[in-house]
Amino acid sequence: MQSLQEKASEWSGVSQNDAFEIDNTNLFQKLGLQTFINLSTNFYTRVFDDEEEWFRLIFANSKKEEAIQNQYEFFVQRMGGPPLYSQRKGHPALIGRHRPFPVTHQAAERWLHHMQQALDSVTEIDADSKTKMMNFFRHTAFFLVAGDELKNRNQGVPCKHGASKPAASMT
Amino acid sequence: MQSLQEKASEWSGVSQNDAFEIDNTNLFQKLGLQTFINLSTNFYTRVFDDEEEWFRLIFANSKKEEAIQNQYEFFVQRMGGPPLYSQRKGHPALIGRHRPFPVTHQAAERWLHHMQQALDSVTEIDADSKTKMMNFFRHTAFFLVAGDELKNRNQGVPCKHGASKPAASMT
Repeated sequence: MQSLQEKASEWSGVSQNDAFEIDNTNLFQKLGLQTFINLSTNFYTRVFDDEEEWFRLIFANSKKEEAIQNQYEFFVQRMGGPPLYSQRKGHPALIGRHRPFPVTHQAAERWLHHMQQALDSVTEIDADSKTKMMNFFRHTAFFLVAGDELKNRNQGVPCKHGASKPAASMT
Repeated sequence: MQSLQEKASEWSGVSQNDAFEIDNTNLFQKLGLQTFINLSTNFYTRVFDDEEEWFRLIFANSKKEEAIQNQYEFFVQRMGGPPLYSQRKGHPALIGRHRPFPVTHQAAERWLHHMQQALDSVTEIDADSKTKMMNFFRHTAFFLVAGDELKNRNQGVPCKHGASKPAASMT
């Protein structure tokens, strides 16, 4: 069985090495906190205004300001800065926390479309950092698609309408 | 609804702040790679030999050497060292990757019992580091119990035996 990270590489076209190139430099030191705030603000402004209703509706139960803060705090923490996210919310647990959202291939591509536009709009981000970040985002988006597909496995969850044996044994 | 991290604090008795005290020091620099290898080796030797069969069986499909490496690489990465885990496996995604395991309250306590013994056995670990690590482990163990309970919510997964509407709307 393919692992989550193997699926992420295959579907995103970004190797594990390229995705985690962000660990060989310190993008937080290079870009600074305000750049990350600007990036996430730009990104979620696009998302909450998306003309594609199916995508916009994924965020219908989210508060924009909260989404922005969650995102830039995670980026800062993951890209060499202080652990802002964990201090406030604990483990990123990316798959677990994306569980309420339908992270399909199509949704990943739409997320990446907005992120590419946001990266291009925030002029403080140099071309090299942009490439590194986009590789990380692309790989991660499809890592979450792979994580999302685990939901359909329905492991160990007894079905309310079937017999008493767990659903996992029925597949 | 209580968040994952609120449940983790309540069930573990360890506040978010105490759990992430590990971020205010660099335990990797203080203890070194070999100490983390020793800790995980000691821990999994106990787990794979556990007299409690129900707990030992949780690891029946795991290879001991692999479990050891996964664990110490994650600890090293999370406690101030190089990102060994992500270079090899990608995002820790703690909840997603624990999905195959039944992380119950009882299993968390048994895991912590063995980890306490392992910490006490590895003499290179000073008392202060031990306290910080145990707070982190205790909070994290119950964070994963909270994550495990999400499986029972069965969010958005259509039941094979029910009507065509998703299970989420049936709860």
